[in-house]
Amino acid sequence: MTVTDVATRTYNHNFRLDPIVRSLLDTDFYKLLMLQMIWRRHPDVTATFSLINRTRSVRLAEIVDEGELRAQLDHARSLRFTKKELIWLSGNSFYGKARMFAPDFIGWLSTFRLPGYELRKADGQYELVFEGPWACTTMWEVPALAIVNELKSRAAMRDRGRFALDILYARAKSKLWEKVARLQALPDLAISDFGTRRRHGFLWQRWCVEALKEGLGDRFIGTSNVLLAMDADLEAIGTNAHELPMVAAALAPDDAALVDAPYRVLEEWRQHYNGNLLIVLPDAFGTKAFLAGAPDWVADWTGFRPDSAPPVAGGEQIIRWWRQKGRDPREKLLIFSDAMDVDSIEETYRHFHGRVRMSFGWGTNLTNDFQGCDPDGGAGLDPISLVCKVTSAGGRPAVKLSDNPAKATGDPAEIERYRRLFGVPAYQARAVRV
Amino acid sequence: MTVTDVATRTYNHNFRLDPIVRSLLDTDFYKLLMLQMIWRRHPDVTATFSLINRTRSVRLAEIVDEGELRAQLDHARSLRFTKKELIWLSGNSFYGKARMFAPDFIGWLSTFRLPGYELRKADGQYELVFEGPWACTTMWEVPALAIVNELKSRAAMRDRGRFALDILYARAKSKLWEKVARLQALPDLAISDFGTRRRHGFLWQRWCVEALKEGLGDRFIGTSNVLLAMDADLEAIGTNAHELPMVAAALAPDDAALVDAPYRVLEEWRQHYNGNLLIVLPDAFGTKAFLAGAPDWVADWTGFRPDSAPPVAGGEQIIRWWRQKGRDPREKLLIFSDAMDVDSIEETYRHFHGRVRMSFGWGTNLTNDFQGCDPDGGAGLDPISLVCKVTSAGGRPAVKLSDNPAKATGDPAEIERYRRLFGVPAYQARAVRV
Repeated sequence: MTVTDVATRTYNHNFRLDPIVRSLLDTDFYKLLMLQMIWRRHPDVTATFSLINRTRSVRLAEIVDEGELRAQLDHARSLRFTKKELIWLSGNSFYGKARMFAPDFIGWLSTFRLPGYELRKADGQYELVFEGPWACTTMWEVPALAIVNELKSRAAMRDRGRFALDILYARAKSKLWEKVARLQALPDLAISDFGTRRRHGFLWQRWCVEALKEGLGDRFIGTSNVLLAMDADLEAIGTNAHELPMVAAALAPDDAALVDAPYRVLEEWRQHYNGNLLIVLPDAFGTKAFLAGAPDWVADWTGFRPDSAPPVAGGEQIIRWWRQKGRDPREKLLIFSDAMDVDSIEETYRHFHGRVRMSFGWGTNLTNDFQGCDPDGGAGLDPISLVCKVTSAGGRPAVKLSDNPAKATGDPAEIERYRRLFGVPAYQARAVRV
Repeated sequence: MTVTDVATRTYNHNFRLDPIVRSLLDTDFYKLLMLQMIWRRHPDVTATFSLINRTRSVRLAEIVDEGELRAQLDHARSLRFTKKELIWLSGNSFYGKARMFAPDFIGWLSTFRLPGYELRKADGQYELVFEGPWACTTMWEVPALAIVNELKSRAAMRDRGRFALDILYARAKSKLWEKVARLQALPDLAISDFGTRRRHGFLWQRWCVEALKEGLGDRFIGTSNVLLAMDADLEAIGTNAHELPMVAAALAPDDAALVDAPYRVLEEWRQHYNGNLLIVLPDAFGTKAFLAGAPDWVADWTGFRPDSAPPVAGGEQIIRWWRQKGRDPREKLLIFSDAMDVDSIEETYRHFHGRVRMSFGWGTNLTNDFQGCDPDGGAGLDPISLVCKVTSAGGRPAVKLSDNPAKATGDPAEIERYRRLFGVPAYQARAVRV
């Protein structure tokens, strides 16, 4: 006898929306760490975040329906932190530390909602812009990216039959498990999920996280996704992002203050956080310039996250600098997180094993690798290089140079000015796939 | 909000048994065709069927729990043909013919139940024997095999976690779909599912059948499984089996009658069935002897199913014979069904394409290929060569020689006698994997 739950079936018929983001915790942990500092120290700073699709060949506005996009963004704006979520943020330990988030900050979060957005189409792309207080707009980065990426996935799968989808996910599961099996061969691996923003979809990210937990055990050290960390009792992973030095630099009154901005940001950070949260992200305006000008105390920090240099070269550059500063790299941590996949993880792991502590943040190639999985072929599920960057702060343009010239963002004249101050890129441009 | 159907959940808690065989139609179509003839012509013949595990290294009695096996067999004995099933058997066309099953036979089926069984353990194996009227015991072959094979699968998966099973089936689906993609390259392919008896499980067989339907369209000509044919509106495929000549030979009063038995069986068959059901299964006592002694009218039949010779050699042997008889092989049909998989299907297809009509019956390697799929490794899901053969009829031993000496079954002295009458095997023994 077939038993059908008629109530559920009827309810399912009436779905108006299948929401992509259903919790304000469905974001990266570093956003919350940064948010607390921004809220405490820069409550009056305004910052504009903008969606940027670096994969211009994918004309998103012709793929993703505007009405659906607005409905998803509007739904995200309707979200509030729930009591359970705030209690967990207050009561949980992060990076071994209790009470990471101050009671007054938690109190402010209880009233938080995502601010408004401006959306229009231009040249086949969406212009999606978030303007307002930095402490509000910063929180759009991850949900905006997750929404656009999942709507793109849904569009690619819209005409697929039930069976094609079955094969699609069977292949994707098999593919990820082959990667897990290869990673099992690296005994001292420490790896975390950094794939929220570029994920194929929320449920798929959750499956990927479960796969790593199952397959890698303690070598899977956690996820950047706060909601998944809470639900699966995993460590929430993340420290800080380029927006901190970018905003500080944009606000700098003169060139001297601009050149000093990356270090001022670290000064602020260490007044809020310590231990394994003292991770330097050195590449906002080029790692070479950053290291050349860095005060001695920066070498006391726990580690670096080289995020746009080639991993081996970038890691060696930092190790050399630690040695120059008289520090033992074996006591230091390197976090690799730029477009990593199993090949580059293996290569980097083997190159540095025993010479430095390492961990890996695995993003797009963990949560959105469907290449070769679609039985109907096509590239509709290929990930794109979509980012949501701070583009101005306090009304002044924000710039990122990065170690990969192909990743530079900002007004061209400002980029030129920053290059005069920080020097030309030390690395060749590398194609940005994701 | 999570909605749980409490009634269903509670009911699920109370499962005493997850029945493997849930319908008497969950059998191979040829059993019903043969059954009608047996019931009509040989109602008084008794025949004993016995389970034989040719993969002796797998000690089934140490893997499959006897209580579970008895519970499953007992459940199968509780089944009756339902009204819907009998109406469908009466009203459906099979092989293009309406009213394949006579009303009095359908009437008898409405009272049919599987007869008793004898089960005991010996030397790590199960001795499972069905004794009684041939028209009853013959119907145990397929459900007995499906039950034992699925219990073996379940035992192999008993300790697997939810996640390992997810990976297992994802891999198996991906693997089958790679096979389907290869078969899509064969434009004139005609292939059917013959995998009921050796299936991993019923639900998996159903998925495989759906995969072939989805992936091969009209080139997937149907399934031997009557229940799946009914439920999925597919053609039921199958003709006759070795038990017909084996029983006829066992009952033969003298050597002359024994040598003539394979042809007498065909005589009977053509009085019941015609068209594409006139398929010769020539290898019960060796194809060479069969062809040498066959009357001319056998060459008028639609085709042959070479079932134990190597496919290319076996097909060529039959094509030569047709030519000797002045028949055009291009108007004839060869059905290949012995341990076929994509490699041998491709090879056979390419070898004979344009020279003879062909179809393939794809069995164990369709519905039970999990090699390389278990993330925990091990060989517990490897298929075994399990058969359920007629071992005596009318109290006299039944023998099968086959074209593969490794597949001979029966009393050794009787095998010797048969070999004196039919000649030595024309082919070398080939390992029987499935």
